[in-house]
Amino acid sequence: MQNISAIAPIAGFIGLSLALVTYGRLIKKPSGTDKMIAIGDEIHLGAMTFLKAEYSKLSIFVAVVAALLFFGGFGTYTAGAFIFGALCSGLAGYIGMKSATKGNVRTTAAAKDHGVGAALQVAFSSGAVMGLSVASLGLIGLGTIYFFQSESDQLTGIISGFSMGASSIALFARIGGGIFTKAADVGSDLVGKIEAGIPEDDPRNPGVIADNVGDNVGDVAGMGADIFESYVGAMVAAITIAATMSAATMTEYFGEGVNTTMLITLPITLSVIGLASSMIGIWGMNIFKGMDPAKALTVSEITAGVIFLVAAALYLMNFGYGLSVFWAILSGTIAGFAIGKVTEYYTAAGPVFKIAKASKTGPATNIIAGIAVGLQSCAGPLLLIAASILVAFEFAGLYGIAMAAVGMLATVGVTMTIDAYGPVADNAGGISEMSKLGPEVREITDGLDAIGNTTAAIGKGFAIGSAALTSLALFVAYKQKVMVAAGGDISMDITDPKVVVGLLIGAMVVLICAAMTMTSVGKAAGEMVDEIRRQFKEIPGLLEGTGKPDTARCVEISTNAALKEMVMPVLVAVAAPVAVGYGLGPESLGGMLAGSLLTGVVLALLMSNAGGAWDNAKKFIETGAVEGEKKGTDAHAAAVIGDTVGDPFKDTTGPAMNILVKLISIVALLLAAKIV
Amino acid sequence: MQNISAIAPIAGFIGLSLALVTYGRLIKKPSGTDKMIAIGDEIHLGAMTFLKAEYSKLSIFVAVVAALLFFGGFGTYTAGAFIFGALCSGLAGYIGMKSATKGNVRTTAAAKDHGVGAALQVAFSSGAVMGLSVASLGLIGLGTIYFFQSESDQLTGIISGFSMGASSIALFARIGGGIFTKAADVGSDLVGKIEAGIPEDDPRNPGVIADNVGDNVGDVAGMGADIFESYVGAMVAAITIAATMSAATMTEYFGEGVNTTMLITLPITLSVIGLASSMIGIWGMNIFKGMDPAKALTVSEITAGVIFLVAAALYLMNFGYGLSVFWAILSGTIAGFAIGKVTEYYTAAGPVFKIAKASKTGPATNIIAGIAVGLQSCAGPLLLIAASILVAFEFAGLYGIAMAAVGMLATVGVTMTIDAYGPVADNAGGISEMSKLGPEVREITDGLDAIGNTTAAIGKGFAIGSAALTSLALFVAYKQKVMVAAGGDISMDITDPKVVVGLLIGAMVVLICAAMTMTSVGKAAGEMVDEIRRQFKEIPGLLEGTGKPDTARCVEISTNAALKEMVMPVLVAVAAPVAVGYGLGPESLGGMLAGSLLTGVVLALLMSNAGGAWDNAKKFIETGAVEGEKKGTDAHAAAVIGDTVGDPFKDTTGPAMNILVKLISIVALLLAAKIV
Repeated sequence: MQNISAIAPIAGFIGLSLALVTYGRLIKKPSGTDKMIAIGDEIHLGAMTFLKAEYSKLSIFVAVVAALLFFGGFGTYTAGAFIFGALCSGLAGYIGMKSATKGNVRTTAAAKDHGVGAALQVAFSSGAVMGLSVASLGLIGLGTIYFFQSESDQLTGIISGFSMGASSIALFARIGGGIFTKAADVGSDLVGKIEAGIPEDDPRNPGVIADNVGDNVGDVAGMGADIFESYVGAMVAAITIAATMSAATMTEYFGEGVNTTMLITLPITLSVIGLASSMIGIWGMNIFKGMDPAKALTVSEITAGVIFLVAAALYLMNFGYGLSVFWAILSGTIAGFAIGKVTEYYTAAGPVFKIAKASKTGPATNIIAGIAVGLQSCAGPLLLIAASILVAFEFAGLYGIAMAAVGMLATVGVTMTIDAYGPVADNAGGISEMSKLGPEVREITDGLDAIGNTTAAIGKGFAIGSAALTSLALFVAYKQKVMVAAGGDISMDITDPKVVVGLLIGAMVVLICAAMTMTSVGKAAGEMVDEIRRQFKEIPGLLEGTGKPDTARCVEISTNAALKEMVMPVLVAVAAPVAVGYGLGPESLGGMLAGSLLTGVVLALLMSNAGGAWDNAKKFIETGAVEGEKKGTDAHAAAVIGDTVGDPFKDTTGPAMNILVKLISIVALLLAAKIV
Repeated sequence: MQNISAIAPIAGFIGLSLALVTYGRLIKKPSGTDKMIAIGDEIHLGAMTFLKAEYSKLSIFVAVVAALLFFGGFGTYTAGAFIFGALCSGLAGYIGMKSATKGNVRTTAAAKDHGVGAALQVAFSSGAVMGLSVASLGLIGLGTIYFFQSESDQLTGIISGFSMGASSIALFARIGGGIFTKAADVGSDLVGKIEAGIPEDDPRNPGVIADNVGDNVGDVAGMGADIFESYVGAMVAAITIAATMSAATMTEYFGEGVNTTMLITLPITLSVIGLASSMIGIWGMNIFKGMDPAKALTVSEITAGVIFLVAAALYLMNFGYGLSVFWAILSGTIAGFAIGKVTEYYTAAGPVFKIAKASKTGPATNIIAGIAVGLQSCAGPLLLIAASILVAFEFAGLYGIAMAAVGMLATVGVTMTIDAYGPVADNAGGISEMSKLGPEVREITDGLDAIGNTTAAIGKGFAIGSAALTSLALFVAYKQKVMVAAGGDISMDITDPKVVVGLLIGAMVVLICAAMTMTSVGKAAGEMVDEIRRQFKEIPGLLEGTGKPDTARCVEISTNAALKEMVMPVLVAVAAPVAVGYGLGPESLGGMLAGSLLTGVVLALLMSNAGGAWDNAKKFIETGAVEGEKKGTDAHAAAVIGDTVGDPFKDTTGPAMNILVKLISIVALLLAAKIV
């Protein structure tokens, strides 16, 4: 099957080349006025400085863990794959950041010179560089390993190492990015908007550059690493389950004609089909750009999705798989899409209006209403995940669950493009405000930004759904591997006290990490507040617009806080499954995976959705949707408080939960054979 | 063994008689001035009116469910036991409320006439009526059923029916009480303290009587029903596990001399020993009352606990059980005590100070800090529960887990006494303020109230810990019963998709109920705000103290809201396990129990502790513990907002989670034999 396996790295290199060509075209676009260029450079520089500092810190972590894997007897290839996974994830983040921080100012310039269609296309192309890189590097990484190691009996261990490398970088990127962006955001808002009474993105605010850098650090690099990890993790889980599947099970679900190698290569092949479909969807934007921007994005995504499903069905039928896996893929794809829609409802419709109305009786009732909405918003996604599990299992067994995740993530090229579009549009708005380009440009960028907020909320729902399915698939793979290693049946019965203890500890680890990240944002935002207050006091003429703020100092504060505070949660996440696995055994570790999965997914949904709903409740009041209320009323002040509480919910702690759950699962999978 | 089984109802009747004698003595104490008597009567009347309305509504529910059980083929005895369980729980609530609303004004009078020692003893006696009633009615109920049905092969089904009756009433009482009290509390505070600027418990505030009624409705009746349910549920679980234990398992853990009947009667006998120990601890207050009040309460509790443990050890050794069960009991008792201490730390020490300090940068940082503390506070209790499960299982198998819960709850007579003391002391303070008794009396009642706040926080931790162990024990009993019904091994493997789907649905049900209760409080508080605003506007001379507020109207609003809003969550809680059990099968129902247990316990801990911490953070600022801050500063205003958010967290939604989890488990246990 080496013929097939060569397709993946080849497709990956084609995709990456396309990403680089897109990037090359992007940077040739004009960057606007001198003022715009200066601001763009400042954001670019801040982002790159952070990334450099982060990566040099991470390289120590990667070296230490690789050494532990090597000397811990996991094999040279696994240790090497761990480094390779970290490199691929890091490279995807680097390319994405580079592109986003070049694309932002060029989007503003396009809005200024050519209007909304051109601006949309620049922002979209900038996102496409990231989207294509994530998918391509995933295929290059896993594809190359499979190409050289497809005959190795260590294959599943080696790809787990690759996935763990990606996962570790992702958790660092998400938590570090989340702390960076929210320290800057909360700090600038508390002093700038509330104390000094100047608008958002005002160039007099010393924290404003850090805030714009944060959008890239959190929503581009963080989100990219998150999705990269799910993409890789889903394939790793499917391959592992396929490799450990008994002949009887295989015949039961797929009939006589299917063998192990066919099932192992399928997730990779389908991802190649997904990448090709994504390219078509992305290319289609050349046609769609004339449409209403929100519609254009949706059409691009749906085009890719439909092409993928049709091509996948044709492939499965023509290569002897039958359609059983197709139903699993379809259930995953529909669940992913539907979770996005539920998220949209809770963060942009009726429930948000209730929160906005509750603001009339003050901040306390606003917060209570927001938490209630957050709790409520978990129900739909949990039910959708449950339904897709049942369908996938019914048609294709445990393998089907992993393939549902693979299906959900196959068109990651285009979904990630749209995710990365959001912060670019957001930045473009900030740059037009800071460069004082006037209301007509700002209106275009605001429009693109508002669409970005909705796509961001949907993207978060999608990220959570895919993380849940991926973790579950990794969890199932873990159980299979433990059984193979034990040479027979190991029961992980849910009433076994060892499993129950694992469940409780799993929940505990998630809660501790959540608490740490919340506390970190609070602390870092406090430092930012002090610094901005100091600058307003000490720099002469700053508020009058004659003095120049020391924006670099604010970037530095966010950077230092992020780098310092991101370490502990990752160490806990990596150490906890090791301690439970070796200390209490494989049953407890199984329980831990279930406990962390459940708690992590619930917290991720609750926090992301409550945060998104608070944000939009404030916007509802600002746009006059609540009778008698507008910017500056008491109800608006209450809604601003809710929005600020929601900031770390939706942009730091909530998204970190996704990756945390996946990282714990992948560490467990790697340990599976050792702890029996 | 009928000799032994007669002991339980006899002990129960002795305990109940003692409760009635204590009550008889209590009401002979003086009630103070005419003003005090009038206020006391108003609170008493409000509480009794609510209870009557609640019980008449519940009787419909009880009749319908009993009919469903009867016609659903669960047997006449099970249906009858369901009604009996509901009656016992209701009676315990009635006696407790009666005693608390007679004891409050008499505590104030004792503080006025005789000082702190006398006031402590009146409040304590008032609590003891409740404490003794809860324990005694539990023993009367289960003891009587066992006396008549010990030879029946339906025994475990019948006692499950009893437990389900108690559980349903408990969930109604907790949710109804929680909504009543917080609608009144939040409503009165928002208008009275914040808008009108009058102090807490000021007689001019129309909501103040409803607020004081609410303390009884929520913290006496609600808490009593909660603990009653755990007490009964733990015994039911132990009996069911004993009844389904194989001879081999029995020999493995307890040696040759122990038989099924011995294990079935043990939880009941130990609870009798616990009741006797509680009586000694309660009686001891006659000696301890000279001590510092906080110390006196602790000494009373520890006395009962130590006597119980020594007596239990002697009983186990002399009646051929050996000490294996003792270690399980000890681990449960220690875990319960330690969880209380952890709760105390998070709601009264360092973490609270951090929240108080975070209030300096406004309400948003106060809320973020509070949520972080709540998340963090879950870790210790989860670890303690895990440790006690491991120890109990190690020494006495699955039966040991149930016995750990029985041990934790055996001295419920005294722990419930101290829990019920809290709201009595709180009311006593309110009455002294409303009757304008002057600062020296208020100082005594404030002191007793402050101790009540700490005991309440510890009591909540204890309630969560015992609920977790009880639910887990019921869960294990459910699995055993399913296996017996299926006539062999049914696996509930944690990677089985059916189990995973159950896990997700279990979490979902808990989240939906939590969202419903939060929303209900918000809605009801809104109505209360409107009514109090209306009265301040329309009743002439109200704020000047010459007009008379329409307090009855506010009590009515709370009553109506509570009665209306309590129905849906209970229906969801009862219907969900039935739907999952019949629709998806016993494996999914097992998963649902684990999912609801984990999510419910986490939410209960998070919400109760965050709420308690916010409350005390506000008090820290008021007492000058934060430099430069006091009542009236911006930081204080921020802390008041946090406290208001915490109100439904700690007194409505958080505590409801305990019972919800137990109710789902007990419904599942009842269904176990039917759904296989």
